Amino acid sequence: MSIVTLIGAGQMASALTFPLFENGHEVRLVGSPLDDGVIDRLRQDNYHVNLLRTLHEGIHYYKNAERGQALEGAELVVCGVSSFGVDWFGDEVLPALDERVPVISVTKGMLDLEDGTMLTYPEYWKKKLPEESRLKLYAIGGPCTARDLADHDPSFVGYCGPDMDILRWIRSLFATDYYIISLTKDVAGLECAVALKNGYALGTALAVGMAEKAGDDGIDHHNSEAALFQQSVKEMLELLRIVGGGMDNIMYAAGDLNVTVAAGRSRTVGLLLGKGLPMEEVLRRLKGQTLEAVVIATRTARAVKALAKAGKVQESDFPLLMHVNALLNEGAELNIPWKEFQKEM
Amino acid sequence: MSIVTLIGAGQMASALTFPLFENGHEVRLVGSPLDDGVIDRLRQDNYHVNLLRTLHEGIHYYKNAERGQALEGAELVVCGVSSFGVDWFGDEVLPALDERVPVISVTKGMLDLEDGTMLTYPEYWKKKLPEESRLKLYAIGGPCTARDLADHDPSFVGYCGPDMDILRWIRSLFATDYYIISLTKDVAGLECAVALKNGYALGTALAVGMAEKAGDDGIDHHNSEAALFQQSVKEMLELLRIVGGGMDNIMYAAGDLNVTVAAGRSRTVGLLLGKGLPMEEVLRRLKGQTLEAVVIATRTARAVKALAKAGKVQESDFPLLMHVNALLNEGAELNIPWKEFQKEM
Repeated sequence: MSIVTLIGAGQMASALTFPLFENGHEVRLVGSPLDDGVIDRLRQDNYHVNLLRTLHEGIHYYKNAERGQALEGAELVVCGVSSFGVDWFGDEVLPALDERVPVISVTKGMLDLEDGTMLTYPEYWKKKLPEESRLKLYAIGGPCTARDLADHDPSFVGYCGPDMDILRWIRSLFATDYYIISLTKDVAGLECAVALKNGYALGTALAVGMAEKAGDDGIDHHNSEAALFQQSVKEMLELLRIVGGGMDNIMYAAGDLNVTVAAGRSRTVGLLLGKGLPMEEVLRRLKGQTLEAVVIATRTARAVKALAKAGKVQESDFPLLMHVNALLNEGAELNIPWKEFQKEM
Repeated sequence: MSIVTLIGAGQMASALTFPLFENGHEVRLVGSPLDDGVIDRLRQDNYHVNLLRTLHEGIHYYKNAERGQALEGAELVVCGVSSFGVDWFGDEVLPALDERVPVISVTKGMLDLEDGTMLTYPEYWKKKLPEESRLKLYAIGGPCTARDLADHDPSFVGYCGPDMDILRWIRSLFATDYYIISLTKDVAGLECAVALKNGYALGTALAVGMAEKAGDDGIDHHNSEAALFQQSVKEMLELLRIVGGGMDNIMYAAGDLNVTVAAGRSRTVGLLLGKGLPMEEVLRRLKGQTLEAVVIATRTARAVKALAKAGKVQESDFPLLMHVNALLNEGAELNIPWKEFQKEM
């Protein structure tokens, strides 16, 4: 039995309590500064008001103010903040952690620097730590919706980080017959693959919206969705090359694209844009929701543009990303650049 | 304007008449020996009884017995037979063709030799031709259902073959604003990618059947479908390595997997097996239908087993394929080997 402390009581961290608790570990779930209400309700009857599931009786709940207590004796720390909590986690939480205790993050995303460098969150956090810190950062990627995991639907993800022995130990804490985990030391590859797919899920879902707008026209529109899916995989392969990630990570990107196009907010944004709504109206309709796909597509497009300016890539290799970015940020009208997908390979 | 003769009046060859005819070419559609009835009806009112669409007025229709006439002056020959007509095309049609006229095939599939070599149809046909033949064979792959193409839903495919100049010319005949074509000389890569995905579409659709069997249990089951999708991409990447195909071709495999899991017979077979029906019962229900996914999964599994015996690959790298094969050919009961998906990469 180990003690595992999860920081951020979002849907995914909370779903991870299922395999951890069922494997017999002491599970401590700590809310972020925004999660006090979530923790209050969990303490009442274990019901998570955003996950919409009842967690196991026996899990320990802490508010952010009680974080120190939750970390006492912890053998593994899980970062479960959303991508909008990345700086809070890096600035407030990380420096206070025992650097001998590994940290694994389930936050998906990526940052871009001015020169077009795309940075995973583990890399970003590492930069915030003092150089002499021995803290080791691990991360989780792959197609896994929180509710399906909580419901024990078989889920297959990747865990990555610098030390294979520690990865194996972390896996031993989490793995169950319904939570399947492959391991890799290729952090840039896995993390970028799963970050990118949010933007491309939005891009692929444009076809879903176009089909909805066309209405009952007797056409299945499978081809146009597959065309955007295919182009997404193509562009993600190029991006994996740029970050120096192994090509095999495309499996996570493609698997994750499959599930993200099927459900979730990234799909919704793409669907509404695909129906021809302007971004302004999409934002109005989804007001108050965190739209990670918009953030990641914008960042990726900005990185590609910076790299193109430096002569390192060609914007014309990313026609779908560029059009998504134009829809999101430049007020463009929907007009999939199909012809630009045509390449000689 | 060019003269294009399509041999085999199946759904896909017939759908290809849309872009060809709209681009102003003389289009000649020739039935296989099994297509006389299809041709009879097309001659009446251009209605295709299997495609369920009306072809353009002005297309010329020929029965197999009139094939010689249809080939007079043809500048491009399109092979549109199903994978069950591959030997007929190789033995009866190919030897009679003018070897200066390029042939492009839309038949998806693959053959396996005893030593585990996986052979694309262009390679297989090439072997049947006399060594001195200068006939050049091209092929079409990628996610494209015939009906969606006929309905002008944007479709994105790959054309492959030995000569890039000829590929460009062929593309100029077919490409429209809704039919998007990339080009590659990597025949093994593209053809294997799109052949393999049929077997893996069946494998991924197991999750669809499992979800249907579970019924209205409040679980979305997105994760398990994505898990099988992801594992399919993983195994297809391994297979691409085996045939020496470029990794980028995984875009076609993944795009095609997306559309094939969404609709079609490969999905149906996987879905029924996923519901727990034995293969015998699945075959009874689908009696009379050509089940290419069953053929390709069986062939691929046989090739992997032969290669494993020769020490060239490990069966354990293909747990999904092996389980699909056991379901199809060994009377196994459904039991997805989730744990075997766990790897260190």
